[in-house]
Amino acid sequence: MKNAATRNTRSSTRSLDSRSRRELARSSSSRKPKATQRTSFIRASEDDAQFVPPSKCQCESCQLRTPSAAYQLERDRIVASRFNVLKEIDQSIDDMISDLEQLVMFQSISVEPEKLLESCRALDWMANRLTDLKFKTYDYPIADNPSNCFVDPHQKVLFAKYFSSPSKNTLLIYGHLDVLPVQIDCWISDPFKLIAKDNLLYGRGVTSGKGMIVGWLQAIECWLKVHNDLPINIKFIVDMLHEVGSTGLQAHITARSDFFADVDFVVFDVNSWVNNINPIVPCSLTGWAHFGVEVRGANKNLESGLASGLVYEPMIDLCHLMNGLVNDEHEIQIPGIEINMKRLSTAEWHLLESAVFRTYEYREDLFVRRLRFEDNKVEFLQNRWCKPTLTMHGVEGADSHPGCRRILPMKVMGKFSIKLVPDQEVKHVFNLVKDHMRFLKVELNVSTQLNVNLLNGIEPLSWTMDSKLIKAVCRAVESVYEKDVITTHAIPICLPIANVLQKLVNKPIILLPYSKRIDKHHHENESIESLNVSRHTKTCAALFAELSTLRPKCKCNVLYQYCTLRGVQEILDAERNVDLNKVAVEKKWYQFTQKAASSDDHPTRSRARSTTYTLKKYLLLPFRCKRKIKRRHTQST
Amino acid sequence: MKNAATRNTRSSTRSLDSRSRRELARSSSSRKPKATQRTSFIRASEDDAQFVPPSKCQCESCQLRTPSAAYQLERDRIVASRFNVLKEIDQSIDDMISDLEQLVMFQSISVEPEKLLESCRALDWMANRLTDLKFKTYDYPIADNPSNCFVDPHQKVLFAKYFSSPSKNTLLIYGHLDVLPVQIDCWISDPFKLIAKDNLLYGRGVTSGKGMIVGWLQAIECWLKVHNDLPINIKFIVDMLHEVGSTGLQAHITARSDFFADVDFVVFDVNSWVNNINPIVPCSLTGWAHFGVEVRGANKNLESGLASGLVYEPMIDLCHLMNGLVNDEHEIQIPGIEINMKRLSTAEWHLLESAVFRTYEYREDLFVRRLRFEDNKVEFLQNRWCKPTLTMHGVEGADSHPGCRRILPMKVMGKFSIKLVPDQEVKHVFNLVKDHMRFLKVELNVSTQLNVNLLNGIEPLSWTMDSKLIKAVCRAVESVYEKDVITTHAIPICLPIANVLQKLVNKPIILLPYSKRIDKHHHENESIESLNVSRHTKTCAALFAELSTLRPKCKCNVLYQYCTLRGVQEILDAERNVDLNKVAVEKKWYQFTQKAASSDDHPTRSRARSTTYTLKKYLLLPFRCKRKIKRRHTQST
Repeated sequence: MKNAATRNTRSSTRSLDSRSRRELARSSSSRKPKATQRTSFIRASEDDAQFVPPSKCQCESCQLRTPSAAYQLERDRIVASRFNVLKEIDQSIDDMISDLEQLVMFQSISVEPEKLLESCRALDWMANRLTDLKFKTYDYPIADNPSNCFVDPHQKVLFAKYFSSPSKNTLLIYGHLDVLPVQIDCWISDPFKLIAKDNLLYGRGVTSGKGMIVGWLQAIECWLKVHNDLPINIKFIVDMLHEVGSTGLQAHITARSDFFADVDFVVFDVNSWVNNINPIVPCSLTGWAHFGVEVRGANKNLESGLASGLVYEPMIDLCHLMNGLVNDEHEIQIPGIEINMKRLSTAEWHLLESAVFRTYEYREDLFVRRLRFEDNKVEFLQNRWCKPTLTMHGVEGADSHPGCRRILPMKVMGKFSIKLVPDQEVKHVFNLVKDHMRFLKVELNVSTQLNVNLLNGIEPLSWTMDSKLIKAVCRAVESVYEKDVITTHAIPICLPIANVLQKLVNKPIILLPYSKRIDKHHHENESIESLNVSRHTKTCAALFAELSTLRPKCKCNVLYQYCTLRGVQEILDAERNVDLNKVAVEKKWYQFTQKAASSDDHPTRSRARSTTYTLKKYLLLPFRCKRKIKRRHTQST
Repeated sequence: MKNAATRNTRSSTRSLDSRSRRELARSSSSRKPKATQRTSFIRASEDDAQFVPPSKCQCESCQLRTPSAAYQLERDRIVASRFNVLKEIDQSIDDMISDLEQLVMFQSISVEPEKLLESCRALDWMANRLTDLKFKTYDYPIADNPSNCFVDPHQKVLFAKYFSSPSKNTLLIYGHLDVLPVQIDCWISDPFKLIAKDNLLYGRGVTSGKGMIVGWLQAIECWLKVHNDLPINIKFIVDMLHEVGSTGLQAHITARSDFFADVDFVVFDVNSWVNNINPIVPCSLTGWAHFGVEVRGANKNLESGLASGLVYEPMIDLCHLMNGLVNDEHEIQIPGIEINMKRLSTAEWHLLESAVFRTYEYREDLFVRRLRFEDNKVEFLQNRWCKPTLTMHGVEGADSHPGCRRILPMKVMGKFSIKLVPDQEVKHVFNLVKDHMRFLKVELNVSTQLNVNLLNGIEPLSWTMDSKLIKAVCRAVESVYEKDVITTHAIPICLPIANVLQKLVNKPIILLPYSKRIDKHHHENESIESLNVSRHTKTCAALFAELSTLRPKCKCNVLYQYCTLRGVQEILDAERNVDLNKVAVEKKWYQFTQKAASSDDHPTRSRARSTTYTLKKYLLLPFRCKRKIKRRHTQST
């Protein structure tokens, strides 16, 4: 494995212009001590936590209220760099593979507590990598899940931020480095060693967290190489407990909500391909409601040899009650459960119809005899995505250990969850469940005490597909895949942490397509097309550029003196030591005249469009340029 | 707490005759090292384990083939001592209370693994106490239950034996020293401190193991004081894991089956009073069959967010299947389940009818709203004792932890048990259950795989009430309680270890009545009438005497040179230094002539009976006596 130092040297020698080479060499030489190196470069306020939000923007120099020439110049530079970045990504495939190789080697299986140290090491690797990429990183211990009783090493989460400029949008990227356990004998090669074979990359985690995060890292690295800065501000949450439900992260995010105050968008990678041709940008998330049906008999557990047959047993009553939730075909029997459900549109029906999904493959993969609705693909996929479904998870309080215990449990809780889809509501579904259980209790003449609890509930989400944001995302994806992107509500993604983050930070969610349906997602012999990995990296890079075109909002109302913060961009501008105003005016003028000339050269173009274009451009020009044009016009006429 | 040394001194100063005082003092002084002391007294073969069972008795001096005078003399001495022993018990109440006090102080709660050390200490106390009573003790570690992962101190079992003579019966006593957990705030006093109040003894364990074992200890001590020997040979199994199902003991017993080779009877104390007036000697044990209904779907657990609604869920199918086992009134729905059940006789019906059992008290004690058959006492008690009942214990393999896990379990096992009553058979019931589950699978159109397993099965037992043994037991109980004893099959006792031991050693079981229904058995504020404790001690003592009257069987076929083993009795005889033959002849002669004289004094007695008596006695007399009588007769005629 290459260590951080060699990586740093390598990237510095490859940087494009002398300025950035100087910059990177300086940061490399001053890397120890780490803290100094970080603060020497990024001047983000250390005491974000103590800000007093002003009622409105108080900064005189707010770039967003009166955009300066530097701001305009940077936007142009980003447009100009974008093409080079994508080209750079094509040339950095080896770096990307090297990153993925190192990440795959960590056996960060989060469901196996004894592998916690591996997860921590993966997180440290990530922190080093981000530090090299001029990020400021923080890792926080997370409160343990009571059922996992490991103490040291402690489970952690990594936060990181890169602050380029107050006049840029901020993107929050969620990534995770933990993987599912492996059945080692089912793998043709070592699951923790990246193997490239027939244009496929094999290794645990390549279709989930590890593969995704490599894309972001490489996109950032290439932007820094080409542009010496990022087109947007970026924040990271890197999780190591994703596969065990990110326990504790929710509480931690809530406690550190100041970190998210300036976030404009949140992005998640998802595996949402349907037909393997058109990438999909889903615009909805499923929710869920987790219920506990508590049935209580006597005030203590009894010995079955003594009390069997004398009391009404809670476990038997629970069985009767749970039985009434679903019929023999496993259809939910709770009246009214589908009332608020969004119906499929014709387009959505056709999308599901066109899905590359073979139920028999799914069936064979799971080794089951029969699937629900296996003869009707659309019905099957509707159940998969757009309809509420019920799962029984287990029973708490009853005998769950191997062997025979003669205990007659006197307080048991049956646990089931219902997947919610837009536009269902947790509260409404809870009421339906309560009513149904009460009805069953009366109908079955149950004597034991019944209590229906909502153990956890997350509302499903959906958002408009016509927003500027979604359009920008689609542009980014389309520019890479060169296929029409499908935006849809028909494929709500099940990503609990996304619902939680959305609720907490109240920011739009971007769901970016990652591995295709033909990739072996989460399977044994997990693999992904190498092409898909590099495409994902390009999508990430393109997304940065696209998001930079969206008009940012001033964050002075949430982050004290946000607009007066000095970011990377300002330092670079100062280093360039150019009269920004003069440069900007000259450049705008040049562009405008060039455009005007080229529009005159094309007589086939309609006059109306040309005028609109000119007028729009004219309005966008700074005042000085306008004066120049006016003068020219008066001269020519 | 008094230590073993002071106890020893106390008992030795109280012993009745100088011989035994000498004996005990000697054993006390030579108590260290223990091994020497034990072997100096009891000459039981050390290598019991290596015996080669001969085809028939090979010993020339077999007491049982040709009973010697010493054998006859001992039987007479036992009869003579019995009254004194009961008197001695009345005078030793304080000793008994002191024993119980010490035992109650051990917090030997076996369901709490952290209290294991306390249980071990209780067992050590017991071992010391038995050593003082001339027992040879052995403690063995027992294989841990895999679910209890404590390693040291290790769980143990105590075996002990007292070998008086090869011509005496051997009784195996099962006792246990562990108790149920306490809810400390529900007790009016410290549950681990014996409190005497209003003729009641309060303390955890007084109505179960600890109270019972004290009775046996005191009965043995008093017999040794009065008789300097025991009327029978005694073996002990002292368990410390009774309340957690004696896990591991069954395997250990099987492995050490040589220990039980010479056992004639096995005795258990049970709480089988029905009307609080007539003691009950039950003649049956319930059995049980523990089933696991395994339902299997895919080859791995799934994430409910991804697979919910697509597969037929094992947990839902299990719920449907288990639901078909019992109806809403919790009646077993397995066809034919009651076919082999023994029906109640009229006498048995009347016995249940007369039971002092108030269903409302039971209901209030458990804090439940309604009991099954609470308006019909006989029906209720029939369900309690004489009818098969079904209990659902829980589900293995499903989510049983607090909190919400989004797992869709793919292999679950529902566990239930059926209580079996005489004359049901485990195998037959297993077949019925299998057939019913298969029927339900077809009826409910279940697609997941079903497997019905018999996890554990113990046959129910019942034995004749007319045997000499049961009559002897009844005589013992009646002599103490002075009430008619009821023997019945209508109250099968639920005592799993008894079924196991019976099956292993294949010896008759004696179920001795202990605490009454009004005693608070296993409850908080557990208490027992002091009178009942002393009565139990007397019953134990009387039982020793009664069992000694039953003709013992020679064990040479199972225990090599059994008849030539020297026991306590032989040593004592040698110490007494009397010509046993002469004594025996003189005594027999004296008795015979006395009887003959007294029968002559009663002219009301029928001549026939008197002749029979005389003839019977004559036949029983040793040859020497007969010659004397003959001589006398010839002289007188």
